[in-house]
Amino acid sequence: MTADDAMKLLSECRVKIDAIDAQVVDLLNRRTRIVEDIGRAKEVAGLPIYEPKREDDVYRNILAHNSGPLTADALRRIYERVIDEMRSLQHIRRDGRR
Amino acid sequence: MTADDAMKLLSECRVKIDAIDAQVVDLLNRRTRIVEDIGRAKEVAGLPIYEPKREDDVYRNILAHNSGPLTADALRRIYERVIDEMRSLQHIRRDGRR
Repeated sequence: MTADDAMKLLSECRVKIDAIDAQVVDLLNRRTRIVEDIGRAKEVAGLPIYEPKREDDVYRNILAHNSGPLTADALRRIYERVIDEMRSLQHIRRDGRR
Repeated sequence: MTADDAMKLLSECRVKIDAIDAQVVDLLNRRTRIVEDIGRAKEVAGLPIYEPKREDDVYRNILAHNSGPLTADALRRIYERVIDEMRSLQHIRRDGRR
């Protein structure tokens, strides 16, 4: 691979990454809308926002679907951030309804 | 909505979330494989792993695709983690080739 080939490959890779990121953003927003429904349902059912058992299930599900090359630890760290943001949002929405 | 309805809704929502997460995991792994190609191309082209201008482009792309309800700040925090994990992986792979 020459330096020119490398620059061409780099540019192609970035187009692919941007397309993947657009899909990830769409999925994260779909996930957020469902989490908003969950927040309302939990309020009706008198359940707390933080349910460690359910969070364990989420980690179990993502790790079961992980075929790599992301390591389990890297995926878990990314999802800690996702879950944390969604939990914050449920608190904000719940406070807004009170 | 009764408490029973809420529990049923909760259960349906969780099935949907698990399906979305499986897709996110798949996309993140596809993204990681492309990042590995980028790491090799950068090495050939003599470019550094950390390119702040390109990272700005990644943030610009995800924020342009964000139709909510995730806030720009929440999405940025999630992607900081994604980008950080992928940058670490490029370093690990580069060190492994040396």
